[in-house]
Order: sequence, then structure tokens, then C-alpha cells
Amino acid sequence: MTTLSTTDPRTGTTTPTLIEQTTPERLVEITTLARDAFRNLSTRSRAWRAGLLQALADGLEEDREALVSAAMSETGLPQARLTGELTRSIFQLRLFADVVTEGGYLEAIIDHAGDTPLGPGPDVRRMLVPLGPVAVFGASNFPFAFSVVGGDTASALAAGGSVVIKAHGSHLLTSQRSYESLARSAAAHGAPEGTIGIVYGQQAGADLVRDPRITAVGFTGSLSTGKILQSLIDERPTPIPFYGELSSVNPLIVTAGAVAERGEEIAEGLYTSFTASAGQLCTKPGIALVPEGEAGDALAAGLVSRGGAADPQTLLNSRIHHSFDEIRTRLIEEGHARSLLAPRAAEEGFARTPAVLEIDADHVTPAVTEEAFGPLIVLVRYRDLAQIGATLAAVPDSLTATIHSAAGEAQERQALTEVVRDVVGRIIYDGYPTGVRVCWAMHHGGPWPATNTQHTSVGATAVRRFLRPLAWQDAPQEVLPPELREGQVGIPRRVDGVLRPSGS
Amino acid sequence: MTTLSTTDPRTGTTTPTLIEQTTPERLVEITTLARDAFRNLSTRSRAWRAGLLQALADGLEEDREALVSAAMSETGLPQARLTGELTRSIFQLRLFADVVTEGGYLEAIIDHAGDTPLGPGPDVRRMLVPLGPVAVFGASNFPFAFSVVGGDTASALAAGGSVVIKAHGSHLLTSQRSYESLARSAAAHGAPEGTIGIVYGQQAGADLVRDPRITAVGFTGSLSTGKILQSLIDERPTPIPFYGELSSVNPLIVTAGAVAERGEEIAEGLYTSFTASAGQLCTKPGIALVPEGEAGDALAAGLVSRGGAADPQTLLNSRIHHSFDEIRTRLIEEGHARSLLAPRAAEEGFARTPAVLEIDADHVTPAVTEEAFGPLIVLVRYRDLAQIGATLAAVPDSLTATIHSAAGEAQERQALTEVVRDVVGRIIYDGYPTGVRVCWAMHHGGPWPATNTQHTSVGATAVRRFLRPLAWQDAPQEVLPPELREGQVGIPRRVDGVLRPSGS
Repeated sequence: MTTLSTTDPRTGTTTPTLIEQTTPERLVEITTLARDAFRNLSTRSRAWRAGLLQALADGLEEDREALVSAAMSETGLPQARLTGELTRSIFQLRLFADVVTEGGYLEAIIDHAGDTPLGPGPDVRRMLVPLGPVAVFGASNFPFAFSVVGGDTASALAAGGSVVIKAHGSHLLTSQRSYESLARSAAAHGAPEGTIGIVYGQQAGADLVRDPRITAVGFTGSLSTGKILQSLIDERPTPIPFYGELSSVNPLIVTAGAVAERGEEIAEGLYTSFTASAGQLCTKPGIALVPEGEAGDALAAGLVSRGGAADPQTLLNSRIHHSFDEIRTRLIEEGHARSLLAPRAAEEGFARTPAVLEIDADHVTPAVTEEAFGPLIVLVRYRDLAQIGATLAAVPDSLTATIHSAAGEAQERQALTEVVRDVVGRIIYDGYPTGVRVCWAMHHGGPWPATNTQHTSVGATAVRRFLRPLAWQDAPQEVLPPELREGQVGIPRRVDGVLRPSGS
Repeated sequence: MTTLSTTDPRTGTTTPTLIEQTTPERLVEITTLARDAFRNLSTRSRAWRAGLLQALADGLEEDREALVSAAMSETGLPQARLTGELTRSIFQLRLFADVVTEGGYLEAIIDHAGDTPLGPGPDVRRMLVPLGPVAVFGASNFPFAFSVVGGDTASALAAGGSVVIKAHGSHLLTSQRSYESLARSAAAHGAPEGTIGIVYGQQAGADLVRDPRITAVGFTGSLSTGKILQSLIDERPTPIPFYGELSSVNPLIVTAGAVAERGEEIAEGLYTSFTASAGQLCTKPGIALVPEGEAGDALAAGLVSRGGAADPQTLLNSRIHHSFDEIRTRLIEEGHARSLLAPRAAEEGFARTPAVLEIDADHVTPAVTEEAFGPLIVLVRYRDLAQIGATLAAVPDSLTATIHSAAGEAQERQALTEVVRDVVGRIIYDGYPTGVRVCWAMHHGGPWPATNTQHTSVGATAVRRFLRPLAWQDAPQEVLPPELREGQVGIPRRVDGVLRPSGS
């Protein structure tokens, strides 16, 4: 047995835990339980499943203090941020309970038997059904919202799947406590053993995606790890969907009108956004396009003065800590970016001074458009719209793009919208990409390499990832799922081509 | 330039055509036009696009005679079948016009700004937008419904994409004429050049999926070709979705009650189903589970007598013709299946006598569960439900499963439904899997290796394959697509969590 360690990023001190790396034998036990649990879960009603999600939310609320305290010492993230993140995760479980109750996510469709141009057509009914046990990979930067108690777990359970979570090595104790909270609440709600499982250690993660009982994988993490997991899946005899949220630079554009009108306000908002959670958010604006000239200079100076006055920010782990320095150096040496703010001499543990770099739009190359985790922003100084287009063409496609413009710039706003809509999954106007709202309409996904599919990992529609369509043809009423039977079933359905909100 | 040939499968005679293999240079011209057309199409309204689909349907109706006649000489399929297939393709275009007009496929969602447990939430609006130019691979077995004028073309155009079709080598002239019909109608409707393109030759097909301007691939064909195309896509710097409809055995189960009640009727239906289109349908029942005993013997005899009385059936091309013989031999020699019907001595061109093979359920191995294109069925004789389960476990997951049962067998029907629901995409009761209805509820897809995604290639929801979500946050009304603006927009939308059919 190999025992795993945990590290306090505020000091860099590593302490052994009692958590053991999951052995291959134990992994098979866990995935077998997950498969059996899935079969049992398939017999439960939507009402029961909504109740399960609410019960998990209630349990997390009870365990809030212990969970936040564990996460503070493992991530170095401030209490307010972690408290908010747990609140978000609890809200997310409750939103998915609403999604399950409402039932529109099933995409139920009924075509009664009838004449067609090809003769008599049979009765056909279709809805989405769960894929099966889902593997969820915890993310380093979200110990709650994208880890054990996060969006992938919530959406897989909402879909009707069972879940096996791979705990992230940066917050093992938080993961263990989160899992214990979920498992206790699930058992109290009457969920079968194996509804939620957890495994520890890198090897267990690799074994998990290879396991034949696993039917889908949810992952939030680096492009390089995502590619490794995808290659493991490609070697499976039966391929399964891999939903990876991978890498994003999130360009933010400030027009001449916007910088003239409210440059100082944008400096404040942009600083907060790129340094939030020590810059370790997948929606962090990594590149800001700022006009040349005095107003743009003042915006840059606003970022620099804020960064100079602030304490260094603690990064999550030694890998991110090293990579931050490495990318910062590469941007300067290979990308020829100018550093506007020198690092402080004294930086304790994994702490780092925010980095504000600058480059002229003419000199933007792939070397300055790499995603850098941590509080780092590259200001690209541009003269005109054509330079914005050229810069965006050099930036990898992203989760988001943000456009700051002035009221009178309708034409510029329209032109910029058309430039960014092909290369991102969400466009933000006069705001900031960080702080993703958990709601029905949210889309958190984007063209490659932001994500690798046409799906979201945040918001109500995230549940679609763990479902597949199934059709019944000329089925007797009693073999149909309740949602596809004749009569009032209380969910939205499309019947003979007409959408009926109450499913009548 | 390499000129391509066409073969009449009724005689096996090959004739040169004037069609040239598409050169790499020409391919780039075609995909560049497709990309430019896509940009132009993105400015058109849904009403215009519905009109385009209707115009294509009208044009095919006008060209019906020439198209069917070309397809007869290239596929050896009977006139009635080809006429029906063209009718189906025309109907499919009109159904997608309805889908576009109705607008529910956009999955429009609006969350207004408001308070959340995490503070004030922004206004978020989401809908699906087209991916871009789509590559469509024509299938050998459907010169219309899954080729140039088929479901992938219709759904990609409905989604708002442009299309580049790779013509199947088995029906080059049909493909060319189909393309000319579509191109003429599209131009008359005012579609930009490049809205629909076509390429010829295997190399052009490979180059097409590698082309950086192509954003998705629709394919119906063999598992082996599908894997080759997938590996070409995996080598792209930017991966794109590959929608493959690949391989399906389509088990059909006859219960003891059903065979006793209507064995002769099932023999008639099953014979028609497995020999329809010379057994070259992806939904062909390749395996039928029939009870041991006299009634089952009579059902088998019913198939044999029909096969013995019928003319040999013409297969589509020399590859299918050779593979039919090869698989038939393997099933007998390696799978130990008994042949109940000997091939006729005289089989002209690519014609073959229907093959009826039989095996005991105890002896079912992967060697007898391989998909065989052509008029071939394996009867698996079973004693009890447990043997049905074991047989299905040995059969690869499929597009469909069919259950024939008697009125009094509610329990058996329920148990069989539970067995098959995990391994197929459509369950048919007391009917046959061939003759897929084109409608809103149809699902034509299934667990791997039937298809490789959680999507359908037939029916209204096929359009989802060529769309991706895009979200707008705090967007001024004028930059939003019309479908996401405030007020009555005439499409279903979910507003603040509530589904509103008229989108108010």
C-alpha cells in the first residue's frame, strides 16, 4: 500500500496522510459496485433522484465548516472564495434537482402511428436515458465546484448515472471529507452502495478510464493530461465519451471608446478578474487587447499599481508554481513581451507576485498566447480593428471572449462580435469572464482546445453529456418509461411535432 | 487526372465515366468555397434556410426519373425500392425545413439578470449555432437516403452549415446527377456558390477529413473505414466531431408464445426484412433468436422455403459480394453454424442466394455474431430466457433489437426489454427493424460499435450533430441573434427556467 501526502501551499510543507493509493483490486471492487448501483438507480423515479440531489446539498451545508477548513489548508485559497465555491456547489446540486423534476432534459418525443409519404408509419417514442457509471476527475483549482461535490458529479447523478471520482492530489483530505459527506447523505436517502465512489492516486485514475464498467469520463484540467486520458480511452475495445475542459486564454478586448470612457473602472475590474483565485480559473482573461496611446497606458498603469501594492498570491501546488515561472520567462524571452511589474524578492511557499506583461499587436506570436495558470496577464497594444482580428487569429480558441465598448460604438461592437463568435463558447459584454453563473442558459465549453466536445460542463444542459437517446417502436404502454406513456405525465414533450410544455 | 469507372452489379461490367478523381488542388478550392459559403449562410434567416430545403426537395422531385434510372443501373436495387428511397429523401428535406421553421432545435435559453445565492447574476442567453462546413460521406447501400441527397446533407444544411459530399464509388453517376440537381436548385434559391460541393475518389475523401476548413464529418459505412477516417481526424491539429454509423447485427427475439401464436406470419415478415434491399440495410436483422422445438423449426422452414423459391439477389459491389461469401464460409467453418439453404449454382453478376444459417444458443461465439452485409440470417435456437441473455451478451451492441411476444407474455416482454435496453438504440415490438421512419422521435444510433456518439443520423434530432452551443452574457439586444432577443420571437424558448413554446 502506498500512502499519499498533502502539501500546504502557503508554506510548501508536505505531510503524510492516512489516505492510500487505490489498488487495482480495490478499483475493480469500486467500479463493480458502481455498475450494480447504476442498475439499481435505473429503477428509481425522477422524484427520488431529485430528492437525492437535495439530500446531498443538505449534507454539504451541515459539513460546511469542516470542508472549507480542509480546503483552506490544502489550496491556500482564501476562506471567502472557498465558502462561495461550496455555496455554488450546493446551489448546483439544487439546480440539477430542479432540472430532474422539470423533466425537459429528457427530450421526450412521441410520434404516433400514422400515414407517411412512404406508407403507414409506426408509433415511435424517444427520450434520453443514462449512459451508466461515470468517472469524474477532480480539478486542482476548484476543490468543490469541479471536484468531488462539483458539476460533473451533480450532472452525472442527475442523469441517473452512478459516479466514481478520482480525487485530485492537491486536495486529498478535502476530497475525502467531501466524499464522506456525499456518501453519508446518499446512504441516508436510501441510495444503493456504489452510487458514489472515490479513488486516489494517478495510477487509479488511469485504470479508471480503462475500466470496462465506466461509460463516460468528465474531466477539467490541463490539455496535456486531457490528451493522455483521451489516448487511454482510444485504446479501450469500447470507446466511451470523454468530456474534457482543457485550456483557455479568454481574450478580453477594450475598445478605444471604452478605455476613454472608463479606463480606470476597467483596470479595477480586469485586475480583480485576472488575479481572482490567484489567477487559477479556466475563465481567467489571459490576454487583454488594449488600444495604444495614453488612455491605454493609464489602464496598464492601473494594473501595475494594483499588482505592486498587493501581497504575492499563493498558487495551488508546486507544478503550477514552477510552470508559472517558466511561462512568464518564456513570454519575455521567446515572446519578447515587456514585463511591467517585477516579482517581489520575498515570496513564501508557492506564492507569486502578479505578472503584467505587454506586447505590441504586431509582435503577437503563439509564444505569447499560451495559457498561463496563475496571476498573469498579457496586454496586447493595438492600433485598429484589423490588429484585433490578427491577434485573435493567433490566440487558440477559448471558452470566452469579452468585449468592452462604449455606448456609441455599435458598429465596432457588432464587428467584434462577428470576429469572436466563431472562436469561443461565451461572449461577455462590458463585464468579466470569471465568476461563471450556474444557471439554465450557461455555456461553459468552446471550440478546441477549450473543450473537446459540443457540450458544457456548467449549467443545466451539462446533464446531456451523460445521457443517450433510446427509441421504442410500437411498444405496449407497460414497457415504456412513465415519461413516454399516454396521458398527462407532467414533463415537456414533443407530440406529433408539437411541443407541449406539460406533456399532455 | 484519373478518370473513375462505374460498375453494373447486375452484370459485373465496368464502364469508364467522365468523372475525374478530385485533385488535391481542386479539393482546396471546394472547401474554401464551402467555408466562404458558410460565412454567407450565417447571415441568412431561418425562413430562407427552410426555403432552401424545400427548393432542394422540389428539384429532386423534378429530376426523379433520371435519378432513379441512374441508381438502378449502378446499384442493382429494384425501381420500387429506389423510388421509395428518393421519396424518403425528399420527405426528409421537407421535415428538416419544418424543424428549421419551428426553431425548437436551437435549444434557446434565456436567464435574465437576477439575484443568486452567489450575489447578482448576469443576463445569460444561449442557443445552438452551426459548426461550419460539414463533410458527408455517401453510403454504398443508400444511393439517396444516406448519400448526396440524404440525411447528413439535409441535417447539415438545416443546421446552417455548408456541405462537401464525398461520392461513394458504387454510384458515381447517381451522385453526380444528385449533386447537379441540388446545386441547380440551391443556385436558383440564391444560395452562395460552395453551399453544396462534391468530391470524387478515395484520396479526396481522406484529404477532405484532414482539411482544416471542415468542421465535422458525417459517415455511414463499415466499421473498418470508420476507424480509418477517425484515425485521420485524430491526426488533425484541431480535432473535429466524427459521426459514424458503423456496424449493427440487430438481434430479433421471438418468444415461445409468439412463435406458437403466429410463427408463419413472423417467417413472412422476417424473410422480407432480412432480404430487403438484398440484406444491405444497417438495420437488417442479422440474428434471430428462435425457440427450440417444432414451432421454431416451422419458422426456420418458412425462411428456407422462401429463400429457395426466390431469385438470387444482386449485391451492390464486388467488395460486398466477396465479403458475403467470406463471412458465410466463416460462420459455417469457424462458427459451426449449419447452413439450411444451399447457394444456387447459377448466380449472375454480383447476385447471391439468401443464406439461412442455424446454431444452438450454447454455441454462440463472436464468430457467428459478425455483421454480414447481404441476405444472410443466423437463427439462434434457444431453450430459455437465460440463453437469450447469454446470446445477446455475445452480440455486439446494435442500432436495434426487436422483440416478438404474445399478448399473455407481459413478464417475458418486460424482462427482455430490460435485457436489450442497455445494448441498443431502438427497441421494436412485434415488428421489424428495417424501414426506419423519418420523424421527430426516431433514433438511429446506438452504443458502440453501432455508432460512435450519443446522436442519431435519422430523424429531426440529427441536426444536433452539426451544432454547438454559444452563450451571450449581458449582451445589448442588437448584437443578439433574433431568436434570443426580448419579445415574441416565435420559437420555443426556456426563459428563467420555464419552457415557453411560443418563446414569449
